[in-house]
Amino acid sequence: MYREQIKVLDCTIRDGGLINKHDFDHRFVREVYKAVSKAGVDYMEVGYKNSQKLFSAEEYGIWKFCHDDDIRQVIDGIESQTRIAVMVDVGRVNLDDVKPSDESPVDMIRTAAYVKDIDKAIFMVNHFAEKGYETAINIMAISRDKGPELDEALQQIENESKADIVNIVDSFGSLYQESIERLVKRFKSVLKKREVGFHGHNPQQLAFSNTIEAIIHNANYLDATVYGIGRGSGNCPLELLIGFLKNPKFDIRPILDLISKEFIPLREKIEWGYIIPYAISGMLNEHPKAAMALRNSEDKENYRDFYESLVDIN
Amino acid sequence: MYREQIKVLDCTIRDGGLINKHDFDHRFVREVYKAVSKAGVDYMEVGYKNSQKLFSAEEYGIWKFCHDDDIRQVIDGIESQTRIAVMVDVGRVNLDDVKPSDESPVDMIRTAAYVKDIDKAIFMVNHFAEKGYETAINIMAISRDKGPELDEALQQIENESKADIVNIVDSFGSLYQESIERLVKRFKSVLKKREVGFHGHNPQQLAFSNTIEAIIHNANYLDATVYGIGRGSGNCPLELLIGFLKNPKFDIRPILDLISKEFIPLREKIEWGYIIPYAISGMLNEHPKAAMALRNSEDKENYRDFYESLVDIN
Repeated sequence: MYREQIKVLDCTIRDGGLINKHDFDHRFVREVYKAVSKAGVDYMEVGYKNSQKLFSAEEYGIWKFCHDDDIRQVIDGIESQTRIAVMVDVGRVNLDDVKPSDESPVDMIRTAAYVKDIDKAIFMVNHFAEKGYETAINIMAISRDKGPELDEALQQIENESKADIVNIVDSFGSLYQESIERLVKRFKSVLKKREVGFHGHNPQQLAFSNTIEAIIHNANYLDATVYGIGRGSGNCPLELLIGFLKNPKFDIRPILDLISKEFIPLREKIEWGYIIPYAISGMLNEHPKAAMALRNSEDKENYRDFYESLVDIN
Repeated sequence: MYREQIKVLDCTIRDGGLINKHDFDHRFVREVYKAVSKAGVDYMEVGYKNSQKLFSAEEYGIWKFCHDDDIRQVIDGIESQTRIAVMVDVGRVNLDDVKPSDESPVDMIRTAAYVKDIDKAIFMVNHFAEKGYETAINIMAISRDKGPELDEALQQIENESKADIVNIVDSFGSLYQESIERLVKRFKSVLKKREVGFHGHNPQQLAFSNTIEAIIHNANYLDATVYGIGRGSGNCPLELLIGFLKNPKFDIRPILDLISKEFIPLREKIEWGYIIPYAISGMLNEHPKAAMALRNSEDKENYRDFYESLVDIN
């Protein structure tokens, strides 16, 4: 599959950081940046720009806050065309912490929001756009929010926001290709002036195929992570996506090296991938937090009771 | 997804046996049979019916030969609607070893063949049909064999064979949803009198989504294995497929129990799943045998050199 407009965003450090409280050291993040740069990946998202008034720097690692100086430490001196992205959540960022883009190493700010928070997200996106950033809105948990509120939110984004990109986020990993086709077409029918993107989660091993489906229906912005790292079951594996795309700018080799050297050892220390409780959450369209709690308990392989607890409607 | 005609075939023991030379003990196979029976799975394929003149019973386990007595030992006394299947390869079976169906616990015989061997496969299938078995032809390595020879083979099957089912087998795990759509439509356009089925492999995490795609285009026979066990990266996970299908005859709980009790410990002893060298084989449309050799060597995590060895065209 080749389409010149396709852009790949690596969110290894940002989504992977949800497993380890964003506590990757500078060396590791620098290795990821080197590899994705050599691989021709268009963007790398390094973390969240959360307010330090809301979250403790003792409890969380540096990529929960993404200070410009930390970003500079990992990118300085590396030849790269890869643009730097950070994510913000509605209500968790101090807008005054964000400098004008020409004073910052950050190129793109993505605002993550549920449909109900779309007004706040538009306000934030417009603020970042005015400061000179490329901007995106990531609409989360879309498998729970497919009603007319979604149409209204999309119309508002189209009419009122300066967002360059609007991403469909399958937070629960419960969608399959027919749902993706419908959603991408629905987004594109309203968002005439924006690009549409897709961020998949992988509890049912559908993140990669759903990303392919989004590509087929002309989504141009695609999220992925190295070796599929990410909270719970993880995300669309970057190496599979690059293997699939035929755009000559991409080279899989640096990503293969990175997995060999960094991610195989890392996977021994922290868990992600195809794990049954996450699969159950995905098929039942549930947030993975209950599965995460199970995996941290002694009952971690007791799948039947976990399943019953989720389907119990009392 | 619900369609009454849909049938699920569990090939855990048959395809999983390719990892351990078909050496599962009776107790283990009996546990799988109990669970798939309770789960409402339509068929269970227990192994290959190979000739003991061609393969040594010292080198291989009992499921390489599938003697009726071994099958009886694992199914006797268990209440079940699940039909028993075995697989045969062209040229590896002694037809005289196969008793008439009313003297055997086997219900279905599936003949695996490449397109080039279709004449032999048809001869064998007709032989088994005359002995009273339900029959299928599994067309292997179809990602390498998509030319006019495939059309000719399908036409021959339609005109000359007694096969009840014709299965599309993505042996290399290199197909994605658009290829599956085209293949299922192509099969169904010729095979007016048969059911079409799909057997996926999972190097690129596409086995489940490709199975869904086959369902969407009216394939009714679907292969899967417990926890995705199978050679290399394995197969479509049965638990995901049952979670997706809405047919009330299926119950995921016995499969969840089986994974907890038997497959989590087994996975510590033998390897399958998402493993980069298999992903590379899949994306390059190659047989997994080179990746299998790599995984048995000291170089098992050296992905770049492995990739270069496969793309080197000299």
